[in-house]
Amino acid sequence: MQPNWSSHYANRTNRMKGSAIRELLKLTERPEVISFGGGMPAPEIFPVDEVGKACDRILKNFSDKALQYGTTEGYNPLREMLASDAKKRGLSCDIDNILITSGSQQALDLLGKVFIDPGDKILVENPTYLGTLQAWNSYECDYVTVKSDEFGILPDSLEEELKKKPKLLYVIPNFQNPTGISFTLERRKKVVELADKYGVPLIEDDPYGRLRYDGVDLPSLAQLDSELRGQTNGQYNGNVIYLSTFSKILAPGIRLAWVIGPAEAVSKMAQAKQGVDLNTSTLNQLIAYEVGKDGFIDKHIEVIRRVYHERRDVMMDAMVEHFPQKIEWTHPEGGLFIWVTLPEGNDAAKLMVEALKENVAYVPGGSFHPLGGGDNTMRLNFSFSNPQTINEGIGRLARVLKTHLK
Amino acid sequence: MQPNWSSHYANRTNRMKGSAIRELLKLTERPEVISFGGGMPAPEIFPVDEVGKACDRILKNFSDKALQYGTTEGYNPLREMLASDAKKRGLSCDIDNILITSGSQQALDLLGKVFIDPGDKILVENPTYLGTLQAWNSYECDYVTVKSDEFGILPDSLEEELKKKPKLLYVIPNFQNPTGISFTLERRKKVVELADKYGVPLIEDDPYGRLRYDGVDLPSLAQLDSELRGQTNGQYNGNVIYLSTFSKILAPGIRLAWVIGPAEAVSKMAQAKQGVDLNTSTLNQLIAYEVGKDGFIDKHIEVIRRVYHERRDVMMDAMVEHFPQKIEWTHPEGGLFIWVTLPEGNDAAKLMVEALKENVAYVPGGSFHPLGGGDNTMRLNFSFSNPQTINEGIGRLARVLKTHLK
Repeated sequence: MQPNWSSHYANRTNRMKGSAIRELLKLTERPEVISFGGGMPAPEIFPVDEVGKACDRILKNFSDKALQYGTTEGYNPLREMLASDAKKRGLSCDIDNILITSGSQQALDLLGKVFIDPGDKILVENPTYLGTLQAWNSYECDYVTVKSDEFGILPDSLEEELKKKPKLLYVIPNFQNPTGISFTLERRKKVVELADKYGVPLIEDDPYGRLRYDGVDLPSLAQLDSELRGQTNGQYNGNVIYLSTFSKILAPGIRLAWVIGPAEAVSKMAQAKQGVDLNTSTLNQLIAYEVGKDGFIDKHIEVIRRVYHERRDVMMDAMVEHFPQKIEWTHPEGGLFIWVTLPEGNDAAKLMVEALKENVAYVPGGSFHPLGGGDNTMRLNFSFSNPQTINEGIGRLARVLKTHLK
Repeated sequence: MQPNWSSHYANRTNRMKGSAIRELLKLTERPEVISFGGGMPAPEIFPVDEVGKACDRILKNFSDKALQYGTTEGYNPLREMLASDAKKRGLSCDIDNILITSGSQQALDLLGKVFIDPGDKILVENPTYLGTLQAWNSYECDYVTVKSDEFGILPDSLEEELKKKPKLLYVIPNFQNPTGISFTLERRKKVVELADKYGVPLIEDDPYGRLRYDGVDLPSLAQLDSELRGQTNGQYNGNVIYLSTFSKILAPGIRLAWVIGPAEAVSKMAQAKQGVDLNTSTLNQLIAYEVGKDGFIDKHIEVIRRVYHERRDVMMDAMVEHFPQKIEWTHPEGGLFIWVTLPEGNDAAKLMVEALKENVAYVPGGSFHPLGGGDNTMRLNFSFSNPQTINEGIGRLARVLKTHLK
């Protein structure tokens, strides 16, 4: 008798839908397709030489560490480096505030494991990062969406929902995925104050913060939270768990990210991580440390900024030139994405079929909306394709829109 | 007000005790301590040159792949290599049967996520692998233990429990962690038959199978399951999910392992993996592929076998020479561990305090027993220390036992 595997699946798997987008994006892997779909960095500026030199040094001098099991919390010199870097940029913390994770996606899963009971209410922006929904769906939470405008999440809507004591508040204050919108300083302060007032833990997801092309860097919510508490020295002990990653400033292939949070919560997440993967690749941790310890990453970020800045401008210019007038889009000051809104009544998922015929792809915006809706939206990535390809792709997409838009 | 983080934790965290062992083992990190505690490979035989050459080739030729995001299922050439290797050793399968994971610990977590509802009964050996208990505790299952003897799990006890329709059966048939015991061919066949008869999915954890020092290799449960079904060609489609890892045959620092299972279950696990870490480090997958594709790993396993064979013999000889007579231990034909049973009434956890005074360490056996008991047992690792250190350490441990044994 053939085993019937699906009869054995846990109930939570009913919430774990495979991403329809992901299936769609498989179609975009044909080489003739110009894809604005993924969130991938530009491979031509990966710091290949520095990674190679780091590998040489590591295997020559530290192979016994790099190839061996490591501690669950992470490689201590790397944790020190990250704590010191956070301090330099305004957030006082120490090594016990830092947990190394296997990409930020793992940090999201660990947050789910440590905090989310089935039925818990989680406050999120609408739209919000799809990967977070995928991570937390398996913990069977319910999402409550809070409205945003071009300055970030709306304080009045937020307060109304915080009063109902949700389990967590999750936001992406810098160049949000998918919208590209950033919170203003005033909004940041307000969000931190409100989360504190109602005692709701605040999850700050910041994969793109270092990738700003216009304007000035704004403080993290974690930093503002410290300042609100007057705790601007020593260990961080506030209400924010901050997530960031090497994926966008070094390379996603090493799957390396970090959490900065109160020592108690970080230690609980480390306990969860022990059961999940024992530790993050020690080799990859040593690579990030060796590449980063003498300041190379800061210099490399300048290169990334220059390249993505140009690509964003090229994409926005091409959109202005070619897109039909009824279409609106965001003007992100950084990050990887532009968010497009078609006139009501259009379905970006259906349009994808036409777009693929023209060999161009994007992510339909519906799946970033945890409670449905947003069918007339789409996310465009500008980091992966070079300027010429961006121009060509936006041209193709404009033709599709001109032909099929209602 | 300081946030009270523990008031926000999910209910499942009550089951996620930090490993007491792990805290204990931190004490063994003093350089003067000889630790038989961890399950670590010998770092002096890590294939450093081959990993270095692989890194060079990869960064020269495939950096755009190696440093980029990859597919959740894993790097296809690596999956092909693993499928072909499994076929060579008797299990017919193809690429859709293979999922790459971030260490076997992640495979265990994914199994929990896909299969285990709170309150589910899981059949395990007693004692069994501590990491599995840690992974699955967070899914709030209940363990049912099945008795074993020196030939493996006992079929009569097993059948009695299988009749009650547990959710999963989990076994480690080769050189079990912690006991070092292996299932005989007869027991293997019986276990496969019984799991099939009662329709209970069988999880076969096989991290050490290639590390045999005496006797002959025995077929995997997955292979026997295929044979039982007469499905010895093409895709594997049976009742076993098989786990193995590069940690013991290449290096644990790259955190790389794989699952072989029915395509449907593998695809469900991949769906879960997407929410958990998107994909396993592409760099590390390419390293394993580049190191393994021309057969180096088979050659390297011969080196590992030779070294560990000697270390096992040295440890067993030293135990015969120095240990008090009332103590018993297993005689593993492979793997990394010897399992020691002290006379009833002794507490190996308490003895650890004395052992640490003598600068020698082991893992007290209690925590490998999911329902308690086993206080008079301990696990000794022989792979990590060199022969001279093993002799010295067993001498120290023997002195502790002679002085403090009841």
